[in-house]
Amino acid sequence: MADVKVVALAGGVGGAKLAEGLQQLLGSGLAVVGNVGDDFELWGLTICPDLDTLMYTLAGVANPQTGWGVAGDTFAALEMLARYGEETWFRLGDRDLATHVLRTAWLRQGLRLTEVTARLADALGVQARLLPVTDAPVRTRVITDEGELNFQDYFVRRRWQPVVREVRFAGAEQARPTPEVLEALEAADAVVICPSNPFVSVEPILAVGDVRARLRHLGKPVVAVTPIVAGEAVKGPTAKLFREFGEEPSALAVARRYADFVTAFVLDERDAHLAPAVEALGVRVAVTDTLMRSAEDRRRVARAALQATQTEVV
Amino acid sequence: MADVKVVALAGGVGGAKLAEGLQQLLGSGLAVVGNVGDDFELWGLTICPDLDTLMYTLAGVANPQTGWGVAGDTFAALEMLARYGEETWFRLGDRDLATHVLRTAWLRQGLRLTEVTARLADALGVQARLLPVTDAPVRTRVITDEGELNFQDYFVRRRWQPVVREVRFAGAEQARPTPEVLEALEAADAVVICPSNPFVSVEPILAVGDVRARLRHLGKPVVAVTPIVAGEAVKGPTAKLFREFGEEPSALAVARRYADFVTAFVLDERDAHLAPAVEALGVRVAVTDTLMRSAEDRRRVARAALQATQTEVV
Repeated sequence: MADVKVVALAGGVGGAKLAEGLQQLLGSGLAVVGNVGDDFELWGLTICPDLDTLMYTLAGVANPQTGWGVAGDTFAALEMLARYGEETWFRLGDRDLATHVLRTAWLRQGLRLTEVTARLADALGVQARLLPVTDAPVRTRVITDEGELNFQDYFVRRRWQPVVREVRFAGAEQARPTPEVLEALEAADAVVICPSNPFVSVEPILAVGDVRARLRHLGKPVVAVTPIVAGEAVKGPTAKLFREFGEEPSALAVARRYADFVTAFVLDERDAHLAPAVEALGVRVAVTDTLMRSAEDRRRVARAALQATQTEVV
Repeated sequence: MADVKVVALAGGVGGAKLAEGLQQLLGSGLAVVGNVGDDFELWGLTICPDLDTLMYTLAGVANPQTGWGVAGDTFAALEMLARYGEETWFRLGDRDLATHVLRTAWLRQGLRLTEVTARLADALGVQARLLPVTDAPVRTRVITDEGELNFQDYFVRRRWQPVVREVRFAGAEQARPTPEVLEALEAADAVVICPSNPFVSVEPILAVGDVRARLRHLGKPVVAVTPIVAGEAVKGPTAKLFREFGEEPSALAVARRYADFVTAFVLDERDAHLAPAVEALGVRVAVTDTLMRSAEDRRRVARAALQATQTEVV
């Protein structure tokens, strides 16, 4: 097990749970490639919500109630910003603010986001390697019936209520995956697509340069764990987005979006009846209880995902 | 009284108390010109310790124990920064951090420090006009037996323990007072030099462009309130600095440093015996209890200072 190397692609809260389960099994053998499409600037600070959720979760300091932010964080700075007349829909905790202040300072000193992320994660004791998919700016833009919104406007301020017509990843085509991501993919025995939102968490990773094509031609097991259980998203707007794009939300619909590059797919046991249809896509299927409430759940689902890749880790 | 216009020059904690007393008497008739020589950058944030102490004090939100920082502030962000391996000798509270984040963002947007300071102070309900003496960078450098230190290194990190040989105000000569400061001086009926440290609080204001010469030729009453009582500083290194410069610390020694531009000087009642020596400098003398423990003390000392200028405010 010590020598097994796995790359996990993950967005925010749901993906972070599985990444943490994988870290329990693989320790420093895990590299987590994070989405940067939801990064944004607020008060001149560079905020990376998905990377931060991954980092705090992998460090064991994430807020267990929300899944994002730091456990026990306070909001004194935000209250003061409100007093100065600023909008406070982005719930920036005091401890979390320290992360953004330091990240921004280091980026301004010329460090790459990859280096900054490694420094922060190391300091918090994260065992896995946490890698932004790219150091270049990629910004998820959500085209809605209320116009084009940047991702945090859509997701946090408008609580994903506007009807979405299209999602775009500005800058993704010109962006290149980092050398660290390419090395991790080369060294990997298997790749795991965490149960994140396909539209706004996983696909902005795949859209960076040739990442999707690389996975397609990797020649190694690539397994995705479903973010949809019994037609509903465990968290967030995944099912809603499927409906807005005119498709029935289901694990099968997710498998179809990934069919060109995954070799295996983990269905929830509530969706076992979908196995033949997923297998018909040419994808090996594993079935398990994919809900992750406890640390043990995370480890269990992580093990099921790795078993589906036929990677020996137990 | 409503029409009386006064300009106060002030540094940090001691000066801020008298400024607040003057604000009690004069409201928006008061313009407070603040020192910017102790400004510095930390984690990419522009921090203005003296302006902030003035702002928080004038807004009634200053920490009453320390005189600096915000009352009831917490230090969650700083603890997180420590976890990231950062030095935390500058005690940055969470609410205070919000001030620096917003100031830095607005400065980066191209606002002048004067505009930023006005916005922040207005939001906190400050009645007086709070004016940085200049929008240009001025940095107090302290030449010590341990080498040249920037001001916060000397004052906070080293707790003013190194022996000082010289104090320099980098950038002061080239800097110009702002149009707002010049207008306030022109409109003023009188000027008050608050009981701040002459070497590191008042003189970096006087050193900006021609400010000292302007005061000398203002043709209006200029009164200083002593920061030294019975040979000791009420707070901070004023007396220590006099000794390091080979001079006996006393209110008389302060009066000598200001004699070229003040028309009146307020001695503490414990130093009444110095009155003839101060008068011999050609400076009118008033004597009062200058210690400010309560809001009433501040108003009382403010009134004494204005009476010494023969400005009618009572």
